[in-house]
Amino acid sequence: MKTLLVLAHPRDNALTAAVAEIFTTGLEQNGHQVELANLVEEGFDPVLREDDEPEWDNPRKQYSPAVRQEMARIERNDATLMIFPVYWWSVPAVLKGWIDRVWNNGWAYGEASFPQRRVWMIGVAGNTASGFAGRGYDNAMSIQLETGVLDYCGVAERRLELLYGSIEGQSYVDQILLDAGCLASEF
Amino acid sequence: MKTLLVLAHPRDNALTAAVAEIFTTGLEQNGHQVELANLVEEGFDPVLREDDEPEWDNPRKQYSPAVRQEMARIERNDATLMIFPVYWWSVPAVLKGWIDRVWNNGWAYGEASFPQRRVWMIGVAGNTASGFAGRGYDNAMSIQLETGVLDYCGVAERRLELLYGSIEGQSYVDQILLDAGCLASEF
Repeated sequence: MKTLLVLAHPRDNALTAAVAEIFTTGLEQNGHQVELANLVEEGFDPVLREDDEPEWDNPRKQYSPAVRQEMARIERNDATLMIFPVYWWSVPAVLKGWIDRVWNNGWAYGEASFPQRRVWMIGVAGNTASGFAGRGYDNAMSIQLETGVLDYCGVAERRLELLYGSIEGQSYVDQILLDAGCLASEF
Repeated sequence: MKTLLVLAHPRDNALTAAVAEIFTTGLEQNGHQVELANLVEEGFDPVLREDDEPEWDNPRKQYSPAVRQEMARIERNDATLMIFPVYWWSVPAVLKGWIDRVWNNGWAYGEASFPQRRVWMIGVAGNTASGFAGRGYDNAMSIQLETGVLDYCGVAERRLELLYGSIEGQSYVDQILLDAGCLASEF
């Protein structure tokens, strides 16, 4: 299976990048081919500008070259894996804009559905699982991303996993890296 | 009261821009001064890059000039009003990044709290209120934005209002414009 790994962190030496590296190694060991989309490094512009604003009454709208390039990158892979740091109980702006701009009416939903069966979202979260659950952030993220993006676009094999406690010390970090390896083997 | 109006839509002739215009007129009639931050038009870059990545153990980190400029824009006003189209059950990337980059540890939360008492978020939503409630999107947005951003940063007078049905026909649009006027008079 060919998998597009969408990475949304500004630093190569970040924990999120280490998680992406573990997934890449694990997937390749399982016979997947991995294509990296390193959004910040590539200079992806997440701002939906007038050229790409969806026309709700025209599902066959022609999008800009930058958006068509992202669509092509998805279409030439069988699955997508987004790996990101959780900022404000959601994805960072660079990844939000990748969805805002690319996952459009007539291509990802509406008369169409997302062109891949499998999309996973892996978020590296600063706080603990109990911290998230206490204020309902875990459920809110699931509704926004699993229900509102992946299910909305007809992705059959969808999964959102949060790896918790990245700022809670080394034992949490070790667990995040272990969990990443296990998840990679399940992909 | 001086109010920073943060607009996050790419088109001047959009319904979201009309809502912003109604708020501007209403606030000025009530004696407020309104400063417009038109993020897309101004070319605000929402990508949190390495220079600005928060150092969690250093709340006195020096941020980049672009971020300090946004902080100054907030600090010279008494309140903030964000007006945006709802994309994927949250704010557009350009506004997500304005929060990601500017609302930082040591300035908006942590040892500090947000420097204004009042922040409202007004989202123009394509779908109907019942459509949102049916899948829990309204509650998820409230948890992410009211609880997770505004309350988290100690904003005492916080409010998230969704104006529903922007793609549901003229009667909905008319209601959105009416509701915007009423909300502006309550600000």
